[in-house]
Amino acid sequence: MTERTPAHPSAYDVLASPYRLLVKCPDGPGIVAAVTGFLFEFGANIINANQHSTDPRDGSFFLRLEFSLDRPLTRDEFAAGFQPAVAERFDMQWTLTDGRPKRLALLVSKYDHCLVDLLWRCQVGSLNAVVPVVVSNHADLEPRAAMFGVPFVHLPVSNANRTEQENALHDLMLEQRIDAIVLARYMQVLSPTFVSRWPNLIINIHHSFLPAFSGASPYAAAFRRGVKIVGATAHYVTNDLDEGPIIEQEVVRVTHADSVADLTRLGRDVERQTLARAVEFHLADRIVVMGNTTLIL
Amino acid sequence: MTERTPAHPSAYDVLASPYRLLVKCPDGPGIVAAVTGFLFEFGANIINANQHSTDPRDGSFFLRLEFSLDRPLTRDEFAAGFQPAVAERFDMQWTLTDGRPKRLALLVSKYDHCLVDLLWRCQVGSLNAVVPVVVSNHADLEPRAAMFGVPFVHLPVSNANRTEQENALHDLMLEQRIDAIVLARYMQVLSPTFVSRWPNLIINIHHSFLPAFSGASPYAAAFRRGVKIVGATAHYVTNDLDEGPIIEQEVVRVTHADSVADLTRLGRDVERQTLARAVEFHLADRIVVMGNTTLIL
Amino acid sequence: MTERTPAHPSAYDVLASPYRLLVKCPDGPGIVAAVTGFLFEFGANIINANQHSTDPRDGSFFLRLEFSLDRPLTRDEFAAGFQPAVAERFDMQWTLTDGRPKRLALLVSKYDHCLVDLLWRCQVGSLNAVVPVVVSNHADLEPRAAMFGVPFVHLPVSNANRTEQENALHDLMLEQRIDAIVLARYMQVLSPTFVSRWPNLIINIHHSFLPAFSGASPYAAAFRRGVKIVGATAHYVTNDLDEGPIIEQEVVRVTHADSVADLTRLGRDVERQTLARAVEFHLADRIVVMGNTTLIL
Amino acid sequence: MTERTPAHPSAYDVLASPYRLLVKCPDGPGIVAAVTGFLFEFGANIINANQHSTDPRDGSFFLRLEFSLDRPLTRDEFAAGFQPAVAERFDMQWTLTDGRPKRLALLVSKYDHCLVDLLWRCQVGSLNAVVPVVVSNHADLEPRAAMFGVPFVHLPVSNANRTEQENALHDLMLEQRIDAIVLARYMQVLSPTFVSRWPNLIINIHHSFLPAFSGASPYAAAFRRGVKIVGATAHYVTNDLDEGPIIEQEVVRVTHADSVADLTRLGRDVERQTLARAVEFHLADRIVVMGNTTLIL
Repeated sequence: MTERTPAHPSAYDVLASPYRLLVKCPDGPGIVAAVTGFLFEFGANIINANQHSTDPRDGSFFLRLEFSLDRPLTRDEFAAGFQPAVAERFDMQWTLTDGRPKRLALLVSKYDHCLVDLLWRCQVGSLNAVVPVVVSNHADLEPRAAMFGVPFVHLPVSNANRTEQENALHDLMLEQRIDAIVLARYMQVLSPTFVSRWPNLIINIHHSFLPAFSGASPYAAAFRRGVKIVGATAHYVTNDLDEGPIIEQEVVRVTHADSVADLTRLGRDVERQTLARAVEFHLADRIVVMGNTTLIL
Repeated sequence: MTERTPAHPSAYDVLASPYRLLVKCPDGPGIVAAVTGFLFEFGANIINANQHSTDPRDGSFFLRLEFSLDRPLTRDEFAAGFQPAVAERFDMQWTLTDGRPKRLALLVSKYDHCLVDLLWRCQVGSLNAVVPVVVSNHADLEPRAAMFGVPFVHLPVSNANRTEQENALHDLMLEQRIDAIVLARYMQVLSPTFVSRWPNLIINIHHSFLPAFSGASPYAAAFRRGVKIVGATAHYVTNDLDEGPIIEQEVVRVTHADSVADLTRLGRDVERQTLARAVEFHLADRIVVMGNTTLIL
Repeated sequence: MTERTPAHPSAYDVLASPYRLLVKCPDGPGIVAAVTGFLFEFGANIINANQHSTDPRDGSFFLRLEFSLDRPLTRDEFAAGFQPAVAERFDMQWTLTDGRPKRLALLVSKYDHCLVDLLWRCQVGSLNAVVPVVVSNHADLEPRAAMFGVPFVHLPVSNANRTEQENALHDLMLEQRIDAIVLARYMQVLSPTFVSRWPNLIINIHHSFLPAFSGASPYAAAFRRGVKIVGATAHYVTNDLDEGPIIEQEVVRVTHADSVADLTRLGRDVERQTLARAVEFHLADRIVVMGNTTLIL
Repeated sequence: MTERTPAHPSAYDVLASPYRLLVKCPDGPGIVAAVTGFLFEFGANIINANQHSTDPRDGSFFLRLEFSLDRPLTRDEFAAGFQPAVAERFDMQWTLTDGRPKRLALLVSKYDHCLVDLLWRCQVGSLNAVVPVVVSNHADLEPRAAMFGVPFVHLPVSNANRTEQENALHDLMLEQRIDAIVLARYMQVLSPTFVSRWPNLIINIHHSFLPAFSGASPYAAAFRRGVKIVGATAHYVTNDLDEGPIIEQEVVRVTHADSVADLTRLGRDVERQTLARAVEFHLADRIVVMGNTTLIL
């Protein structure tokens, strides 16, 4: 549900049409009728609807609705009607968002391909986001951020200062009112404390087709194993390294003639494409996390 | 809407749960609420819903719903409630179908790859259909039909007997209560009269990535043009050759080292895959024809 | 090099043009000149050449040449000239084969999709092979073999009779002068003894994108992990289960809406395609095994 | 053969190892032996070889060889030996190049996706080229060139000044010692005079899967036709618009839910990928033009 902790102040904003309603509840008859009936009475016009019901034995129901309305709205206003009339009846969890650009923080180390791609996409509007800050544990990519006019914060991490720097990072995220954090080839492991503050709000790109070749140096491992296809995986970060809910994957065919350097080069194109698509899904509030998997509604 | 002419008697069958409701109407507020509200009152449980609204300027709304109900149903019974309560209010066209296997006729000439694939898929249940008859203008593939225990009807076509043989074909289709006709590399052009009797009920596979290389010998044309990818296109048959609504397309990469024979061989795998997927969409009542295009809901 | 043990009598056959020469040796200057110079003097015309040099630090050189010659040839005749003039000078391992159809044994259990596909491809000539026998530990697929007129041998395997049945299988392979064994979804593990008698001559299809989801029930495991792409892997069988040299892989995109049954159904198409391509490479003598990887020349 | 007119001064440079030799001649026995034998005597070590023979009826032979040598080389030096010993004997056309970065001019109009991608790839070394100049008929993309520190030349084109501006462009290309011109979404048609001066040295990206949707507004045309896949095509520019030899193509799947704007957005990723690969092949001297098609050796 990409739920927010109270720490994120934009959660209380006045929203603007079109709106996005994400709903999760136990499955049963009448849910779609109740939600869409409520929205009709509310004066809303449904633009788009996607639902998913899990296997009858689990019995969960998920719905994403886009609707337009001729007035701005706060979550509290919507809740005042929706909660008693619909949500309580069906034991729903729900979130309401809108389509305004989200604020992304990009965390990087030394590789620039995902960074340049995301900054360009945000700048030309192919991703519906703004990037108020790029953060790195190395100074190398400062010029890349500067190319796009984005502030760069250098937070070098050592074993000695890890906790302190993560707190600084967290404060920076709040100060910049960050909606989601993208690890665009960030080579540091984030602590459980940090991760728990940003649940399903941190997107990582891993340079392999998970669960194959998790951990370090996946292209070298893929080369040694002699695979004929390599890939990349974008996932939400959890405390199990490379084990979080997968958002998107993509692959590219390789041959015996490709060296580790070739795989790395070919993989770069796949990584940036995969990460951009995952970020796009997140920005569109299309992702629902269910256990350790995602629905893309 | 894959509508049927009265010629198809199964249109009046008693249907069995789960049901499929396809709806088309001018766009506007309250449609989903009205349809799902009606179904809830009717005692139905929605399994699946897909909708599409065209560009606001056209303003068409399309909906496919799967629902379960604890009783059998005729179209007339459903219409008695749905027509006055919902359909008339929103100026809807709609069809109700169910998930029982459809009856497919396969028309072939001399190439067997699509035929063998479809017969196998129907036999093992990967396509939800039965094949009561294979029809061909040549005798060559009779053994292939026999392998799967399917009757084979040889209807040789010449310029002299074309009308007569098409009438025989039409009668055979009715007699066998055929729901849809699949041209599985059938090398004859069907007449406008025949096509008009089976609107959006005849699926053809063309061995190119349309609109490129329409007409005869597309692999030879693709070879001469030096393309790096070849493809196949499954579409509904209309009276404009290779111009009907496209249902599905697939491609495969080729190189300068591939001869016309290689393209033909590689293309066979793409053709059978593309045709099987298009037939699967049709069997699932997922296809809506809009102008000369399809929606896959 | 797909080398044969003396057990395979066809190794001493008289070969027919066009010929295929596979060469492996330490890398160094002059190899291509020496080989092609020899062939020119020999009266051969090179149709096709592919080479691969490993990283300079390993320093291995691999070459596959197709050549035509206006006369039949035995390996001994070719060796009489090639061995002293070229092979010894460069410390080469080499094999000479030709383009006549190979004899494949297909081993199956209960799933028929790979079996039907391979039998059809061999029958229509899209794979350059004949299938003298289908072997299974179950009787279920006897009708499928019969459809294509291929003898079916039922060799049920239990813990008690495993060794005995494998010996029977080996004898059957020799008796039928089998060139390669294809495990077309054969659900039994072959013993080290058997595998060692057929080195790089047994091709298996595993229904996952290895190294992900090795072992049993890969589609269920893929579903649980929530991957967005599933795949299949064809590899030579070694004594490490699912760890042999990978020949070919292919993938297909899936979504959260796909159940384990859907993955299984979608995967079937990928499995049969992947296995067919791997078999095609093997039949064309295009595969060189290097360590635990393959070159496709 | 990507041959150069004398206008391109770098054709007379001293080359550096590793070298690339491209050969074209009538097919016949002994060619590979003669070329590789010569190179062996010359002291060269072959790194890589790719050949292609056309259908026996045409009888053309093509070869690309990479070789290393412990000394620099001019074309004249190489020709002094190779021409009489090998080339004349087999009636060869040949070119010798090396692996130093080529000098690319990028021509653009208003879309920046291909430009940014190519500039980034050249800057990080994923494309083996330098870009001395970006040229445009509009001023819009000057900031993009500036981001990468590349000079931008604004050459506005009108019907009145077309010839004059093309002459200025040609002079600029010579002055900058440009090796190849990339039309990275350049919306002007170049004159036959200009094109004839840069034969197989101008690469264009067309935003459709040619030969489908040639001409203007291909995404709108693809949307109207209802195709399920859109693509992009990189080709050498000839005087037949969108009809030059195809170098590379790529596609992406779309659905009925994608608007023209969506196709355009999805297509951008395909365009930049396709163009980058085509440029990579050109930079590696891997492309041979044969009639109106290309070989990628």
